[in-house]
Amino acid sequence: MLSLTRGAFALLIFLCLTQQLALAQRRPQPPAVVSPEVHPDGRVTFRLLGPEAHEVTLNASWVKGPKNMAKDEKGIWSLTIVEPDIYNYTYSIDGVRTIDPHNPWVKTGVRAASSTVEVPASSPLFYDLRKVPHGEVHIHYYESKALGVTRRLHVYTPPGYDPAKNQRYPVLYLLHGAGDDDSTWTSIGRANLILDNLLADRKAEPMIVVMPFGHTPARAGSSVERQVTSQAFENDLLGDVIPLIESKYRVRKDAASRAIAGLSMGGGQSSRIGLGHPELFQWVGAFSAAVRDVETNKPIQKFLSDPKKANQLKLLWIGCGKDDFLLDANKKLVALLEEKGIHHTFRLSEGDHSWPVWRRYLNEMAPLLFAKRR
Amino acid sequence: MLSLTRGAFALLIFLCLTQQLALAQRRPQPPAVVSPEVHPDGRVTFRLLGPEAHEVTLNASWVKGPKNMAKDEKGIWSLTIVEPDIYNYTYSIDGVRTIDPHNPWVKTGVRAASSTVEVPASSPLFYDLRKVPHGEVHIHYYESKALGVTRRLHVYTPPGYDPAKNQRYPVLYLLHGAGDDDSTWTSIGRANLILDNLLADRKAEPMIVVMPFGHTPARAGSSVERQVTSQAFENDLLGDVIPLIESKYRVRKDAASRAIAGLSMGGGQSSRIGLGHPELFQWVGAFSAAVRDVETNKPIQKFLSDPKKANQLKLLWIGCGKDDFLLDANKKLVALLEEKGIHHTFRLSEGDHSWPVWRRYLNEMAPLLFAKRR
Repeated sequence: MLSLTRGAFALLIFLCLTQQLALAQRRPQPPAVVSPEVHPDGRVTFRLLGPEAHEVTLNASWVKGPKNMAKDEKGIWSLTIVEPDIYNYTYSIDGVRTIDPHNPWVKTGVRAASSTVEVPASSPLFYDLRKVPHGEVHIHYYESKALGVTRRLHVYTPPGYDPAKNQRYPVLYLLHGAGDDDSTWTSIGRANLILDNLLADRKAEPMIVVMPFGHTPARAGSSVERQVTSQAFENDLLGDVIPLIESKYRVRKDAASRAIAGLSMGGGQSSRIGLGHPELFQWVGAFSAAVRDVETNKPIQKFLSDPKKANQLKLLWIGCGKDDFLLDANKKLVALLEEKGIHHTFRLSEGDHSWPVWRRYLNEMAPLLFAKRR
Repeated sequence: MLSLTRGAFALLIFLCLTQQLALAQRRPQPPAVVSPEVHPDGRVTFRLLGPEAHEVTLNASWVKGPKNMAKDEKGIWSLTIVEPDIYNYTYSIDGVRTIDPHNPWVKTGVRAASSTVEVPASSPLFYDLRKVPHGEVHIHYYESKALGVTRRLHVYTPPGYDPAKNQRYPVLYLLHGAGDDDSTWTSIGRANLILDNLLADRKAEPMIVVMPFGHTPARAGSSVERQVTSQAFENDLLGDVIPLIESKYRVRKDAASRAIAGLSMGGGQSSRIGLGHPELFQWVGAFSAAVRDVETNKPIQKFLSDPKKANQLKLLWIGCGKDDFLLDANKKLVALLEEKGIHHTFRLSEGDHSWPVWRRYLNEMAPLLFAKRR
């Protein structure tokens, strides 16, 4: 996924359009289509060249459901809206839901892809690429003994990290959602740029962020099978990923130096694994977490059963958007925590089950981690 | 991009389909669609759920042009073909060219995305993920003084690379095509897995592979402007990328330890920069290279003008597919080299202007690099 300044991105688009035109010299020239076009005032126009299509809609949860687009005499469908952030959207073309074919910036993962558009702010936002020191992202392949397959993970090391130096770092294990893979937190999630900016502004402790792959080769469906899948990921994380990180990187190895957080499916995982293993993780974050099984989930029930022990956690941070379909489940978890007198932070934010929310949650939670006096 | 065994990938797809179904409980259930389906005998069936679409075609250069798909009574369009490799394709849905919305494996870059399908062989191929030691892929952001912007690059370090050890490695600078970005050689190109496999089989020298971003924020179009753009990338590569790599990594810094190769646009860049700077690069590779300006290109003309000096190069490797639209330009370059008596390797292969060809070229050229007795 590209991370470029707005100007550079616009130039790139122009560059590749002109090159495409040059390469297509012999083909008839369709009307030039720019989509999405971000206007200086923050409006965005979406376009689609489809003279033979009969109905085109824009699907984007941030504009509340599908919106019909209108066709002009050249066969270009368009729609203009206003919203500032980084968003994902799809088109439905005669009933087939797909990406915007004119826009090369695509969010990929293990589910259907979607298109991405960034509406920039007048000054750089917390996830923007700024002229500050940048950390490095590492991609590793490793043999998972727990799962019997080769798996991949991403690791962020902060600016100044040097394996030859003596400094040791705390680690945040950051888990993705069901539609994502281990690259999504750094591509669409911009976790690396968010940390770069927090560190440049001295708002967070330098930390290593480990982003493993959360799906496991095991069947999901019934609740029993779901537990098998969930246990399989836990086995991989505790048995393979953590030992790999602690042998390859200069990290601190005590529970007070380990955090675990995740979004959606990954929030369910971070809750079950984090609350189930206080001897390993003393900082737990759950973003729009898939915790609809809170009343039957064994690790969570065990955690709730011993409030005194539970209150030894340094942080339990729960965030959910007001329009998220998982809000009720998260409210139920929060009600149980309140009933038991277990310390926690509940961040009820604007937004739904989408990346604009999760980028903000990481930016809000990361400064709380590993601080000595908080 | 995911790199998984076929079984793991099928399980993933199943997993995410079942999860999508669970999440969509309240919505009416459309027929389950699997696309692409790779059959055990190597046939691939492409499907699209589009009951309201009027015409759907499969666009894939490897089946020679658009093929119409047929609609069944459930509104599912399908087409079955046979070809073993990793391929990219798109659909045209009522005239709108887009990805396969049922397939999460998408090739992204700076141009329109396309869908990806892998037809596996009965035993692992040269680009497959095998149980061998794996190198690491690093993603860096750096300030390009030459271009005045923050840019990103990918670096492959071979298995066993350890900055604390004294060993120093040669470097291959590997450039992408006009539709790609700096991630494409490791995602769709599988350069890291190709090198892992060559090294496991002791077929290549351990080397570091640097994959910079090849587009520059400068206008392309006229030949003068194209030269400016080309020069801008050269300034970034020589002025920023190489010094960055030579300060961050344990690399050898002599011309005999530097190679430069690239595909399409990147092959044009590797030819101009590599042949223009024999004091920096003694190994040059050009894959389906964009060298249509060979008769006016100054660095190439200068190189051709001094065959004695040109023959001090250790390798000039040129590859092009028989169905590539750039074949004539590459043949013209090869004819000039032959006319001047300049040593080179010309690999005229099957295939067109696509990734199946470029993965093979890397696999063929890498074993020739940095060998002491070749």
